Amino acid sequence: MEFVAEIDIMPHTELLDPQGNAVLQNMKYLDIHGVLNVRIGRHVTMAVEAGSAEEAREKVEVACQKLLANQIMESYQYILNPK
Amino acid sequence: MEFVAEIDIMPHTELLDPQGNAVLQNMKYLDIHGVLNVRIGRHVTMAVEAGSAEEAREKVEVACQKLLANQIMESYQYILNPK
Repeated sequence: MEFVAEIDIMPHTELLDPQGNAVLQNMKYLDIHGVLNVRIGRHVTMAVEAGSAEEAREKVEVACQKLLANQIMESYQYILNPK
Repeated sequence: MEFVAEIDIMPHTELLDPQGNAVLQNMKYLDIHGVLNVRIGRHVTMAVEAGSAEEAREKVEVACQKLLANQIMESYQYILNPK
């Protein structure tokens, strides 16, 4: 069975996000007012072939922990759907 | 009212995604098998103060089109929730 994980990897809320702040500061030059906060992270879509949702979830977990997210600075969350 | 937009900005499916391919190629070294495809884009959370959901949506649209997404190479989608 094929599953698709939609993974969001974001900087921890306690940490500064210079990229997000740069975007926030520049909103006014685009005449966009009322933006309170911007945080920028990564979005990963990952298609996995696995026997069960449980098995697919395990692969996604390992990929997030070992390769995709730097857990010192980032947290991740994902949803897993059958394709 | 405060709204929070969760924005995903991804490379167009027709385009190569070198970052995603690099991750895909390295999965085997982590003993993760069965990964078929990986694509990497950006995830942006944006908090907006606006009088209505319609107004908030407009701000998010302008921000995506003018600042966040490069529409030649990327497409964006978002969900907007009241905080």
